[in-house]
Amino acid sequence: MFKAKVKAEVIKEVINVVSTLVDEVKLKITKDKVTLKAVDPAHVAMVDLELKSSAFDEYSATDCELGLDIDKLKDVLKVSKPGDVVSLTHDDGKNMLIVQLQNITRKMSLVDTAGMTDPKVPNLNLPVKVVIKTSELLQGIKSAESISDHVALVASPTEFEMICEGDTDSMSLRLPKDMLDSLEAGSTVRSLFSLEYFGNMIKSIGSTEKVLLKLASDYPVMMEYNIANNEGHVKYLLAPRIENE
Amino acid sequence: MFKAKVKAEVIKEVINVVSTLVDEVKLKITKDKVTLKAVDPAHVAMVDLELKSSAFDEYSATDCELGLDIDKLKDVLKVSKPGDVVSLTHDDGKNMLIVQLQNITRKMSLVDTAGMTDPKVPNLNLPVKVVIKTSELLQGIKSAESISDHVALVASPTEFEMICEGDTDSMSLRLPKDMLDSLEAGSTVRSLFSLEYFGNMIKSIGSTEKVLLKLASDYPVMMEYNIANNEGHVKYLLAPRIENE
Amino acid sequence: MFKAKVKAEVIKEVINVVSTLVDEVKLKITKDKVTLKAVDPAHVAMVDLELKSSAFDEYSATDCELGLDIDKLKDVLKVSKPGDVVSLTHDDGKNMLIVQLQNITRKMSLVDTAGMTDPKVPNLNLPVKVVIKTSELLQGIKSAESISDHVALVASPTEFEMICEGDTDSMSLRLPKDMLDSLEAGSTVRSLFSLEYFGNMIKSIGSTEKVLLKLASDYPVMMEYNIANNEGHVKYLLAPRIENE
Repeated sequence: MFKAKVKAEVIKEVINVVSTLVDEVKLKITKDKVTLKAVDPAHVAMVDLELKSSAFDEYSATDCELGLDIDKLKDVLKVSKPGDVVSLTHDDGKNMLIVQLQNITRKMSLVDTAGMTDPKVPNLNLPVKVVIKTSELLQGIKSAESISDHVALVASPTEFEMICEGDTDSMSLRLPKDMLDSLEAGSTVRSLFSLEYFGNMIKSIGSTEKVLLKLASDYPVMMEYNIANNEGHVKYLLAPRIENE
Repeated sequence: MFKAKVKAEVIKEVINVVSTLVDEVKLKITKDKVTLKAVDPAHVAMVDLELKSSAFDEYSATDCELGLDIDKLKDVLKVSKPGDVVSLTHDDGKNMLIVQLQNITRKMSLVDTAGMTDPKVPNLNLPVKVVIKTSELLQGIKSAESISDHVALVASPTEFEMICEGDTDSMSLRLPKDMLDSLEAGSTVRSLFSLEYFGNMIKSIGSTEKVLLKLASDYPVMMEYNIANNEGHVKYLLAPRIENE
Repeated sequence: MFKAKVKAEVIKEVINVVSTLVDEVKLKITKDKVTLKAVDPAHVAMVDLELKSSAFDEYSATDCELGLDIDKLKDVLKVSKPGDVVSLTHDDGKNMLIVQLQNITRKMSLVDTAGMTDPKVPNLNLPVKVVIKTSELLQGIKSAESISDHVALVASPTEFEMICEGDTDSMSLRLPKDMLDSLEAGSTVRSLFSLEYFGNMIKSIGSTEKVLLKLASDYPVMMEYNIANNEGHVKYLLAPRIENE
């Protein structure tokens, strides 16, 4: 059983994150929270998202799983206005999700969850932690796009750097410690990532102003931030590329 | 003879309506008013529009007919700014329309009206009348677009409903009587329409806030509203689709 | 040697002008100023641009030439915000331009200037001078676009006119002397130009409000205006088309 009301903006935050990776996702619903895990088809990136029941305006649920078509949900929300509250009800018998928004009721067929896997979030030791403005990362990505298709993230005890090197040109975004919200790095670490994936990861953040990046050398990067007015949390993991040297 | 001045916005309202149906239209001009009737090539929709001479800033005319290329008129107005007044003069000898806007004079060749038919507006008995916000209808159409290519309009003594049913999903926009500006319905009526045509009809309204819909079961819908600061009137008729049951 | 700081807006003004004609351009740098000359591949239009050292926030240079790829410079500036100052440094050894903007450093390879020609600005006698609002010229071009692919500029002692004549339709933008900022014309002159080139010339102006046009009959038109807060100057020359009569 699942019946809830939630601000349209909260659903949009969730869609932003998930739609960069998958078209369909399985929601795991319990009496306390909604969680989802998704891996992109190439197995390069993973997202692990949690929304506490307190992220909802009303919430009443027992254990169940919902297979969601992201585009359909996106489609329902395209008429939403700021402040709109969306009502969600799971019709168990027909396996439909009934979505109410303004004077509109949409009955949406759900995807069978039987064939959907449960990705496992790997246990990683990522000792370097950087809290950084989303806007800085976006500027860096925009500047890198025409130069190369991969980007290096480098953190040292004194600064964070995003470096992109092409055949003839290069760019770097350099943020000394005093321009970061926080920086914990015992030594210098460096990992290389696909610019497209890293860019999509940063663009999926939406309006959240700051994110935590966790790094190690030639290891995945983990990005974490809160959504839904701090009642939800996102972990986004991106695998590194092997650096040719 | 035809010589007039009119606000650019009024011409834009007329273009909005007519351009959803036809590329060329015949204006019938008399000393009191300008009228036009247009039917789309598939004969599914018809518009019947009237502009009183009082809709114009200046107006001086004797009986004549002007064959207008809608795109050309649209093109002239693309440089117009809010508040602009357009001067229109028919050059009878050359069958040209001389359009003046700001410091620009455009001489536009007219279409020969000899081959243009005079559609007749059918006399229909549509007893159910609903006055409804344009914005509500627009939200309903946007929500319906991904679900199916037809939409049912249903009116009962207590509510108005727009229903769209696809193979797996469905949506409905439901407006109880207290959310309508007025509702006159002796019994429940229902007709099915092409969503594309109905959508174009609603989108052609422009900035008019409320429209009157007249309905009967499996009958055309007639939409009526005023334009040109209530000195003009539009009737838009849309044929129903046969419902497969 | 070249090392300077300049407002991003000034570089954008330069890019606007030059990018309508060429993809690559040679900057001639001296201790007092930066100049460039560019001719489009069809040899129909030429631009001659000068930026005094006072157009820069900081400026330090000895004689040198820089071969610039316009698109790359445009790309660097796409993350700029109003008020941003850009730092430019020529790395002579590697023939790179180092561009710094916000926290981003971009190293840009330069084009070899050996193969780039030095266009000569012809010495023309253009006795008629009109100072005219850019916005009027833009409105005229927009109105002309659907009518023909060439436009006549006509100036007489009493007015300036832009005329565009198609097979069936025509348009004219007519500005009597009192609607111009100034008009010096001993007699009536008329020249015909490619609408595409003339349109690109006008669109390249950016936010400059007024421009000086210099005309003679069947001669090129010269357009002049200041940029960079009057510390820079643009001359744009456009060859006429032969009028078929």
